[in-house]
Amino acid sequence: MIIHIDPNSEVPIYTQLTNQIIEGIARGNIKPGTPLPSVRAFAADLGVNMHTVNKSYHQLEKKGIIRIIPKSGAVIQEQQDSKQNEETIERLSADLKPLIAEALVIGLSTKQIEEMVETIIVDLKGAEQKGT
Amino acid sequence: MIIHIDPNSEVPIYTQLTNQIIEGIARGNIKPGTPLPSVRAFAADLGVNMHTVNKSYHQLEKKGIIRIIPKSGAVIQEQQDSKQNEETIERLSADLKPLIAEALVIGLSTKQIEEMVETIIVDLKGAEQKGT
Repeated sequence: MIIHIDPNSEVPIYTQLTNQIIEGIARGNIKPGTPLPSVRAFAADLGVNMHTVNKSYHQLEKKGIIRIIPKSGAVIQEQQDSKQNEETIERLSADLKPLIAEALVIGLSTKQIEEMVETIIVDLKGAEQKGT
Repeated sequence: MIIHIDPNSEVPIYTQLTNQIIEGIARGNIKPGTPLPSVRAFAADLGVNMHTVNKSYHQLEKKGIIRIIPKSGAVIQEQQDSKQNEETIERLSADLKPLIAEALVIGLSTKQIEEMVETIIVDLKGAEQKGT
């Protein structure tokens, strides 16, 4: 997996890292069970602060996407159980709401918003199919 | 419009304010052309730092949702032209992507994601219809 960090982006670097790891899993480029690099190695590799990688890993752990095993490392979680999903769906829905509201405010129709979402899904899933 | 600030949320206060103003516009509770309170008055009203309100207003201005008129105040923008929309659509799409990726990673189907988006749209638009 290739991570692109944009130091000029308004998105904090740790969030860029988190998002790209999630996208890598969604695309099927990173499989459940795969260990992530150590914080030290990843930070050196990306040319970022160790604290940044650490923050990203804790964000991913909180989202239930990785499991951090003390003194061992971080591993991509297997699929979550449905109860955990419910909480995550609720949180995702809360995170999606301001973006959907913004889309409505700039005058996008329901159809345009749905198409935008569909395009993203096809992009992510399409890449997964090619990758497997 | 009633703004609820949650000081314990992980979402920064200025972003909570930004999101709720956008949601208020999407719901039709705040109409284009409406002036926003002065930074000082809004900060006092919400019990937050003036800097926080200022940051939110600048975030809203950057998104093209309000216009800040020096020495006068902030006003909700009229609908944007289509060129501005294109840039905003691109940015919104980039912001949506990590959330959609996360939904796929936790095992939601395309249909479930589309339903989640639809539910949010109905919630926002439904409120608008009731409000007008």
